[in-house]
Amino acid sequence: MTSPTTATPAPAVPPAPAVPPAPAVSVPDVPDVLGRCRALVRPALADAVAQLHPWTGEMAAYAFGWCDVGGAPASGASEGKGVRQALAVLGAEAAGADGGAAVGGAVAVELVHAFSLLHDDIMDGDGTRRQRETVWKAYGIGPAVLAGDALFALAVQTLAGTPGPRTAAAVRRLCATLAELVRGQAEDLLLEDRPWTGPGAVRPDEYRSVAERKTGSLLGCAAALGGLLGGAPEETVTALDRAGRHLGVAFQAVDDLLGVRGDPAVTGKPVHGDLRRRKKTRPVLAALAGDGPAARELAALLDSSFRLDDAAAARAAVLVEEAGGNAATVEEARSHLDAARACLRGVPLARSAARDIDALIAFLLHRAV
Amino acid sequence: MTSPTTATPAPAVPPAPAVPPAPAVSVPDVPDVLGRCRALVRPALADAVAQLHPWTGEMAAYAFGWCDVGGAPASGASEGKGVRQALAVLGAEAAGADGGAAVGGAVAVELVHAFSLLHDDIMDGDGTRRQRETVWKAYGIGPAVLAGDALFALAVQTLAGTPGPRTAAAVRRLCATLAELVRGQAEDLLLEDRPWTGPGAVRPDEYRSVAERKTGSLLGCAAALGGLLGGAPEETVTALDRAGRHLGVAFQAVDDLLGVRGDPAVTGKPVHGDLRRRKKTRPVLAALAGDGPAARELAALLDSSFRLDDAAAARAAVLVEEAGGNAATVEEARSHLDAARACLRGVPLARSAARDIDALIAFLLHRAV
Repeated sequence: MTSPTTATPAPAVPPAPAVPPAPAVSVPDVPDVLGRCRALVRPALADAVAQLHPWTGEMAAYAFGWCDVGGAPASGASEGKGVRQALAVLGAEAAGADGGAAVGGAVAVELVHAFSLLHDDIMDGDGTRRQRETVWKAYGIGPAVLAGDALFALAVQTLAGTPGPRTAAAVRRLCATLAELVRGQAEDLLLEDRPWTGPGAVRPDEYRSVAERKTGSLLGCAAALGGLLGGAPEETVTALDRAGRHLGVAFQAVDDLLGVRGDPAVTGKPVHGDLRRRKKTRPVLAALAGDGPAARELAALLDSSFRLDDAAAARAAVLVEEAGGNAATVEEARSHLDAARACLRGVPLARSAARDIDALIAFLLHRAV
Repeated sequence: MTSPTTATPAPAVPPAPAVPPAPAVSVPDVPDVLGRCRALVRPALADAVAQLHPWTGEMAAYAFGWCDVGGAPASGASEGKGVRQALAVLGAEAAGADGGAAVGGAVAVELVHAFSLLHDDIMDGDGTRRQRETVWKAYGIGPAVLAGDALFALAVQTLAGTPGPRTAAAVRRLCATLAELVRGQAEDLLLEDRPWTGPGAVRPDEYRSVAERKTGSLLGCAAALGGLLGGAPEETVTALDRAGRHLGVAFQAVDDLLGVRGDPAVTGKPVHGDLRRRKKTRPVLAALAGDGPAARELAALLDSSFRLDDAAAARAAVLVEEAGGNAATVEEARSHLDAARACLRGVPLARSAARDIDALIAFLLHRAV
């Protein structure tokens, strides 16, 4: 399933102004690509957020990592990577347009992403994200519901107000994605009540479908909106969408891996948090699918009624690794990244943007393997 | 401020199959008008809700009063009046089109209304609506957040997918309304922390502005979408929007009145519930604006730190009446209903639909006076 390209991860150096830009022939520097896209989109995103009521606007800015509670500029670097806005910009560039053509779509997908994190954190009861309190924890549940609604409305309003002949098609695409995101969240919440083993256990294809809806649909939408607003033909828009969806499934797998064995300083999440909460993630489900002693001990641990303390969660992490859950998840990620690349190779794309997208894909996998 | 037309309320008889329909020359029977519009819109609304995930679909159907918890058909009559869908249908008919032209817009506004009730009930902590548990009370906060999101996404998706040359304009209008609704809810929540009297007290114009955003914007949008999808010229669409906004402010005033002095069997809300919760409503604010003994006693009661029990809430209701709060609110409602009528008289409308809208306006006022 692996390809030579996948085996050569892009450098993961943090953005450092002192380092000269890499020469044009080398692999693109992904933090530079993300930074360039961020710089292109940020003014319009900030303008959109500035339209909100000051109260919901502060919560939105807090969610984006721009400010602390109270509105003072954020003290720590707690912004997201901005993968969705980058995919929108690169989608337009891949269609041969200026990245600026994608800005309305890029703003919309970043707003939708912020909305979904905000509401999902309420539903999942997650109190920490990117090493800070989540919005509901910092501002209260009611205000966080409201802030999410404001971001949701702003997203569609921004895209619908973007001038151009393909706005209506873009809005239809965003709306379909919103519906899919919400459906994915419903399915994800229902997974939690399913048994770990036996006939009712969650099958890998079910988990993959949820990951595609929850994560893939918005990444696909981002790239597709960029292509669409950049004037790409329907075939290219579809390929960008499908590539983004595969990337999303891979991205979710990597995120799950980080949740099992990741460093909280990198992930911003508590160590073994997903295990302690008995969250159904890909590595755990893959581990339980085996029939060795590690799988059986893991199933017994997860089926037990007592609370998983630090030691039990650490033991579960060891068992997931021993039962091959992590390896299977890495393989899942790799295969979907390969599929994403195959989608992109099937259509004509502007070379520079295609290389940037490819580097981004490698970079996202490199986080975990 | 009252006009001869306003002084002649439409009959408020409940729908009763045994009573023959009124002759064509008389004032329209509003329950019949609401029923006709409901019958026109219901199949498309039910089709839209059927697209949801079964879980969020059940919560949506519960919110519409179609089923009980668990999905069995609802045992009691707990549907809303359907004023928004009726305004959309009548807006199209007023433009000379068939009411069916408005169905996409009517479905969208009913979905948005259901979304906003669902999320507002979470934020306001309201446990009862239409004599049943609210969705968050019946299903939990997280699921209710999700169901609201699903309705929101479905609303925009349904309208964006409606064929026709004016869909893009309709979507822009709906999005602006969604943003305004959310802003109104933010302002409303912030009113709760303001003092009852003194320099920081809520001014009538502030309250009116919140009522226009929270209630008027969606009623205006409903009528305007009907007109727009029915092919009305811009001037007529604007007049329908403005009329709906005035109607919304009047409607909110009437709702506030029912909250102070209403019969729970009619309103579906606990008696004196708004007073017990110290909610800032128009009758209370109007009463406090006076300087007589009733206003002073009311202010002292509301400023006190103890919980308002049944007796205290009943006393507050008497004081609101004595201090003229109810009379001022009735006057406010009348003046906005007159303004709504004036908006509609300023543009050419199909006669039959204009009469239906006029009757609907009178009917809504008649609930409280």
